Amino acid sequence: MSAPVSDANIERILAGDPRGVARAISVVEDNLQAASALMQSVFPHTGRATVIGITGSPGAGKSSLVDRLAGLYRKQEKRVGIIAVDPSSPFSGGAILGDRIRMQTLGLDPGVFIRSMATRGQLGGLARASVDAVAVLDAAGYEKIIVETVGVGQDEVEIVKAADVTVVVLVPGMGDDVQAIKAGIMEISDVFVINKADRDGVLRTEKELEALLSLAHRDDGWQPPIIKTVATENKGLDELAVAIESYRDFQKGSDQGVARRESIARWRIIELLREQLLARVVSGENFTARFNELASEVAAKRTDPYAAVDELMKT
Amino acid sequence: MSAPVSDANIERILAGDPRGVARAISVVEDNLQAASALMQSVFPHTGRATVIGITGSPGAGKSSLVDRLAGLYRKQEKRVGIIAVDPSSPFSGGAILGDRIRMQTLGLDPGVFIRSMATRGQLGGLARASVDAVAVLDAAGYEKIIVETVGVGQDEVEIVKAADVTVVVLVPGMGDDVQAIKAGIMEISDVFVINKADRDGVLRTEKELEALLSLAHRDDGWQPPIIKTVATENKGLDELAVAIESYRDFQKGSDQGVARRESIARWRIIELLREQLLARVVSGENFTARFNELASEVAAKRTDPYAAVDELMKT
Repeated sequence: MSAPVSDANIERILAGDPRGVARAISVVEDNLQAASALMQSVFPHTGRATVIGITGSPGAGKSSLVDRLAGLYRKQEKRVGIIAVDPSSPFSGGAILGDRIRMQTLGLDPGVFIRSMATRGQLGGLARASVDAVAVLDAAGYEKIIVETVGVGQDEVEIVKAADVTVVVLVPGMGDDVQAIKAGIMEISDVFVINKADRDGVLRTEKELEALLSLAHRDDGWQPPIIKTVATENKGLDELAVAIESYRDFQKGSDQGVARRESIARWRIIELLREQLLARVVSGENFTARFNELASEVAAKRTDPYAAVDELMKT
Repeated sequence: MSAPVSDANIERILAGDPRGVARAISVVEDNLQAASALMQSVFPHTGRATVIGITGSPGAGKSSLVDRLAGLYRKQEKRVGIIAVDPSSPFSGGAILGDRIRMQTLGLDPGVFIRSMATRGQLGGLARASVDAVAVLDAAGYEKIIVETVGVGQDEVEIVKAADVTVVVLVPGMGDDVQAIKAGIMEISDVFVINKADRDGVLRTEKELEALLSLAHRDDGWQPPIIKTVATENKGLDELAVAIESYRDFQKGSDQGVARRESIARWRIIELLREQLLARVVSGENFTARFNELASEVAAKRTDPYAAVDELMKT
């Protein structure tokens, strides 16, 4: 458990001190009660950064793309924050591995802050913690914040939807599940990237995507552009940065921008409410003992989960 | 909203009537209160089926593999239930697409029950609903129940972990994100499949996987086998069915089997508790009006999510 963050630490965050930022993110991950006080101090200082959510299939080369995009922003003398969210890695093997590789290219630049966040057990809260971490980076003056998720699960979709601009990364010739993925992420993507665009099949993937896009209907009238990149050769990154900025400008003052921010606010409130309600029950006297007993009973089929929960709700 | 299920419907479920089963799954998806009564009647009749959780990267050919495995079980005259969970598809585009394709091969066989389940909005509960759907199929006498998830998010991992046997599907040459995925799913996989094993790079993928497995440590001493398949050509399916049965037998009476069932029970209780707590607050008088106001305030940065939740917790 991290200690609560004092006023002095909030000053360090606002001054952009990386160690203060790292410590605040640990609080946000580990200690819901301390997070509440901290985040109430942090929020008034947020809203200046461009938050870019990047998701896509495993194997699409997201990590390379994120690294090169960060490099491009560094050339523009922007400070860059990267939050890599990996809900599939319960024991953080994946996250740690990704970190190590990444540190070799970006880790020594003091203008880049990188943090991996993985699942923290049954009580959940990863999605909430990752958007809180973005708020900390925003308050600390990071101008471009990239949230990268591995996988295409529900939490990941919500996390990238909470960004200002959502980018979905595809690769040519992904096979039979691609249609289903595309249909699922169609609604959330503001910019599409076809990475590894030097491979065979890029034209076909582009045509398929265009066909799907022509069927989709966006309330705001935005036409998501399709950017072709070869991240490992630094190709197409400028176009991607321009596309991101275009959508950011498009939605900034618009009614749709307001609707999007309200939708994000709803999601954040519900996520936090869910977490706080559970935390309150779980911290109750005798909860753990009774919970363990009931889990054994359910496992042995002497009772069922619904009856167990009915009983826990009464205490 | 579905109507509560009467005793008559429970008789229909236990008799294995597909329409009764379909209706019960709709209740489990739509109506938490009715689900509670229904599931308390259903649970005592569960525990006979073999529940097989199948996950893996998009593009790994999971759907084909599931269809062929179901076909093999049909030849053994087993009744087969398939639950396809797609949390990435908020508007069910993906799920519907998958259904249509699948119906062509298996849909006309009365010994196969197929159901897709997708995200049902902000209140969550998909993971809980999908394991409840499995229990309904189990009580209805389906002997082999396959739970297939798209993607590798947190919910998907939990859903496939709740199965008796967890199968992770890989394909040769998936590129740079594969190591991270493998590390993340290492702990949950009882059987590995390398599908599309007629492709280049199968040996390399197998060697990489063996290397990772040699580093991993399982408490139960089980060595997860690696099965090579070409699902579209029906190759390797017999071996897969044998591997699934071997693990099922291995853990059935063991201490590790008990530990696993307790761990699943814990997860189910917590998921359901989380959902019930939120449902209770959300159904409270005046909740919706105040929630909408607070969401607008948060979106406009006049307040923050933590302060909003503090207020909602008081009501």
